[in-house]
Amino acid sequence: MNALPEKMLEEFQQLDADATRPFPGSKKIYIPGSRADLRVPMREISLKAPNAPVCVYDTSGPYTDPEAKIDLLQGLPPLRSGWIEERGDSEKLSDLSSQYGRARNADPKLTALRFEHNLRTPRRAKSGANVSQMHYARKGIITPEMEYIAIRESQRLEAAREAAALQHPGNSFGAAIPAAITPEFVRQEVALGRAIIPANINHPELEPMIIGRNFLVKINANLGNSALSSSIQEEVEKLLWSIRWGADIYQALEKVGGKAEELTWEIFRDTLVEQAEQGVDYFTIHAGVRLAHVPLTAKRVTGIVSRGGSIMAKWCLAHHRENFLHTHFEEICELMKAYDVSFSLGDGLRPGSIADANDAAQFAELETLGELTKIAWKHEVQTMIEGPGHVPMHMIQVNMTKQLDECGEAPFYTLGPLTTDVAPGYDHITSAIGAAMIGWFGTAMLCYVTPKEHLGLPNREDVKAGIMAYKIAAHAADLAKGHPGAQLRDDALSKARYEFRWEDQFNLSLDPETARAFHDSTLSHDSAKLAHFCSMCGPHFCSMQITQEVREYAQKKGIEAAELGLQQGLEEKSQEFQKRGLRID
Amino acid sequence: MNALPEKMLEEFQQLDADATRPFPGSKKIYIPGSRADLRVPMREISLKAPNAPVCVYDTSGPYTDPEAKIDLLQGLPPLRSGWIEERGDSEKLSDLSSQYGRARNADPKLTALRFEHNLRTPRRAKSGANVSQMHYARKGIITPEMEYIAIRESQRLEAAREAAALQHPGNSFGAAIPAAITPEFVRQEVALGRAIIPANINHPELEPMIIGRNFLVKINANLGNSALSSSIQEEVEKLLWSIRWGADIYQALEKVGGKAEELTWEIFRDTLVEQAEQGVDYFTIHAGVRLAHVPLTAKRVTGIVSRGGSIMAKWCLAHHRENFLHTHFEEICELMKAYDVSFSLGDGLRPGSIADANDAAQFAELETLGELTKIAWKHEVQTMIEGPGHVPMHMIQVNMTKQLDECGEAPFYTLGPLTTDVAPGYDHITSAIGAAMIGWFGTAMLCYVTPKEHLGLPNREDVKAGIMAYKIAAHAADLAKGHPGAQLRDDALSKARYEFRWEDQFNLSLDPETARAFHDSTLSHDSAKLAHFCSMCGPHFCSMQITQEVREYAQKKGIEAAELGLQQGLEEKSQEFQKRGLRID
Repeated sequence: MNALPEKMLEEFQQLDADATRPFPGSKKIYIPGSRADLRVPMREISLKAPNAPVCVYDTSGPYTDPEAKIDLLQGLPPLRSGWIEERGDSEKLSDLSSQYGRARNADPKLTALRFEHNLRTPRRAKSGANVSQMHYARKGIITPEMEYIAIRESQRLEAAREAAALQHPGNSFGAAIPAAITPEFVRQEVALGRAIIPANINHPELEPMIIGRNFLVKINANLGNSALSSSIQEEVEKLLWSIRWGADIYQALEKVGGKAEELTWEIFRDTLVEQAEQGVDYFTIHAGVRLAHVPLTAKRVTGIVSRGGSIMAKWCLAHHRENFLHTHFEEICELMKAYDVSFSLGDGLRPGSIADANDAAQFAELETLGELTKIAWKHEVQTMIEGPGHVPMHMIQVNMTKQLDECGEAPFYTLGPLTTDVAPGYDHITSAIGAAMIGWFGTAMLCYVTPKEHLGLPNREDVKAGIMAYKIAAHAADLAKGHPGAQLRDDALSKARYEFRWEDQFNLSLDPETARAFHDSTLSHDSAKLAHFCSMCGPHFCSMQITQEVREYAQKKGIEAAELGLQQGLEEKSQEFQKRGLRID
Repeated sequence: MNALPEKMLEEFQQLDADATRPFPGSKKIYIPGSRADLRVPMREISLKAPNAPVCVYDTSGPYTDPEAKIDLLQGLPPLRSGWIEERGDSEKLSDLSSQYGRARNADPKLTALRFEHNLRTPRRAKSGANVSQMHYARKGIITPEMEYIAIRESQRLEAAREAAALQHPGNSFGAAIPAAITPEFVRQEVALGRAIIPANINHPELEPMIIGRNFLVKINANLGNSALSSSIQEEVEKLLWSIRWGADIYQALEKVGGKAEELTWEIFRDTLVEQAEQGVDYFTIHAGVRLAHVPLTAKRVTGIVSRGGSIMAKWCLAHHRENFLHTHFEEICELMKAYDVSFSLGDGLRPGSIADANDAAQFAELETLGELTKIAWKHEVQTMIEGPGHVPMHMIQVNMTKQLDECGEAPFYTLGPLTTDVAPGYDHITSAIGAAMIGWFGTAMLCYVTPKEHLGLPNREDVKAGIMAYKIAAHAADLAKGHPGAQLRDDALSKARYEFRWEDQFNLSLDPETARAFHDSTLSHDSAKLAHFCSMCGPHFCSMQITQEVREYAQKKGIEAAELGLQQGLEEKSQEFQKRGLRID
């Protein structure tokens, strides 16, 4: 059946070696759940004895497991198949439901170029059933997906609790992160609509993850074919590269046609069905761009910058009618719940510049998205809300507050925001600043920005630069929110740094290879990795070395040193009293 | 007299060509002040007609002025000589005052290697005089330095005011940035101690700048020789490279000796005098590390991480005596005011990890720094306060608030702070997040961090990466604070972007060459720079193109389009009333 060219197969194998070798000092482990087919992958970083290993969230998939057999022609193992089947509320279809999909499958030339597992027939909810995680959650059912997520988010909490004495309590702006993330807590959050689990029943290979402000902040890397250049091969390469560095990835809805005004509800609907049956986990739907909002953008510095937003705006004006995604919204909900596709309600009118931040158009759309959220929830369809864009720092928090108010605490998913427009070429940084802040304030997922944003198509290194900046932003937000265990990795790394365990410092870092290479570019010989100093101060002025001596001195002097503070404090107090002219009677 | 090797001279000339060529589309201009010898350099970026040029703050010195004759052997023109002399309160000394300096000058081998202008005899205040800018400010005198700064900070405010309609009012946390920065405002801020003008009378080449929270946020790049590698040649190269990208640079106090416990007040004092007569503008003095504070660091994850702090801590413990910089603080003040050297009161106990942030040791030292600030101000010595370090986002603001409270609003000068410890190799980003936030909250100057922080010595590209991240952080803070005119550059760049003026977009960006290179890596032919689309969406799905059509459509339809909103609004209201079952009587 499958006629993929040999050459493509070979290229895939090369890719594996490059982007999927295990991280140094790390091994893949699986934490068992309550059933044999529930094993949650984590990456365990070994440290020099007697330091306990550190366990970190692992988005890299089976590719980094040397035991896993990867056959890209067969696809990944369908972990969730059993879970989906045993719920008994969906059925295998005999054919694709979309006209487009059926036409494509009828063309042997196109079929020959597809992977085996993409040719399988899709599943759909039985008539009248709702297969969304939100539906189960509201019925009080804890699904295997929810248990998987609880384990995945906990990062071996025992270790975290032991280290809790060191950790700062976070400040999480009204969110309620518990000390332990249980399956029941996951269920509650999904039932309330405060979190979503993107999990199309046609995507059984999925390692479930959750998007909500009481969980770890997630990042999203947009990849895709460009109209002007780039091949599928390049994009697959970027994808593997992305998950290696920690991105949580979903394919965005591809748009049909060329002329916005020729779009129809029927064409759009057929595309939604086709994508739902391909296994897309969430759809970005620009249903909030209403006819009445369009004139609000006329005086903007940068008009409408969202592709989806501008297409729908043009459609509204050309037909002088309300956005068909808005008028057909309930029909879209019906479709979503038959596959458990989540909504990502697009912010088609997001600001494209600092000047346009938080303006009437942006907020009018956000209010509409709030109304749509309530409708989606009536249908028990999982929903998150997209946000800006370009926002100066002092206007970021109001975005979050308004989103929570308007959208009933549905998860917020923002692009950056960029905190200044003056640094094209560095927009991973201009936006990581805003992303970290809005993540702290409660945004659940951050859409990454690469250095090439506004300028060109990101290559492999640009994708990595964007992801690293966003892993930093997300982790900084987790620390500030007080996600249990988030600080464990910081503390382990700082302790390794202080104790001059260079290898441990490298291995604990987000990018071990870069950390090692930077160290070696100044001090390359192996002995330097055992040295109790670094290249900045050299051996004679090393503050850490001196501190060690201070500690030893204090220990030697025992009680005397411990009393230093007290004794000195009394002397000072006495001087202070004298200065102020006070007397102790 | 001068025996510098020919080869070094040649190398300096090469350097010029590489780091000092003018920026594309830009020219150096000079804005005249009230006197002929007061001309403030700015960089003017020309845009395509009819867009007005944009004027930006220029730290690059005369090197980027093609008209300026640079003779590195002669040094830069001593712009301020006349200003200093005419005040009549200082005098040329017949010899250096420090023993170390005199001994060095007596050695012909050492003298031969020095630049001509470094051999001149220094100035010092006449007996009993105070030559600090704070002293003049408190007497009500507006110095030429203050006028220079007022012009420099204003960035052609007329243009900014014209564009004011577009600009967001900032949120400046109790600071009071006026709509126009006048020389009198500069004087008031210096008199209050809320801002400093580092301006040693032995540094007449200085282009005056101000550090205070009601002014543009400044950045500092630490450069210096390493004990293990690097040459003066390399450091001079990094320096020119740094100011090209926008760093405000001062040489930190070089420490004497090898063994901390052998330091004496006499050796230290002689070094201060020597450096003051060499023209150093501010001294980092670790006078806040008191004997009583040292035990507070014993249980930290990363102890004492400041070199100066650890040296003084060791000295205190070894002698079991109070820090001699603390006990001799008033003598140091006497010395500072004779040259107008400013204090940078070092945070020797700053946290070196997230775990140690905002702990008892850090805050005890900060309280001491507050006491020392009051003493310095009694002597009318300009003073700023150094701050951390490593601080998670939710603990940043308390640092700023406490610093303002304890130190009477003296300028705060922080290193980052880094918002997580897990990303060595990317600490320019972990810290740019914290730097932008603390800059917004009121920090006046940000000490940059390079990607090699904690790992190795930064090379030229690392220095640039650090500076770019910090220019972004500082500018994001200026926007959020509402510095008048700060948004002008963002708006001009966004307008250029929206109008597909690619050349203008490149030229307005912080790093024009990188922006252009990134664009060209996807679309390299010249015609692409005239194209009304970019490589991300291609010509058919360009949202900006579509928005243009939307605007044209709206214009063509005239009143109809303008009424869209109203009409639609009425229909909605009517539907809403129906839904709610209300009647309009």
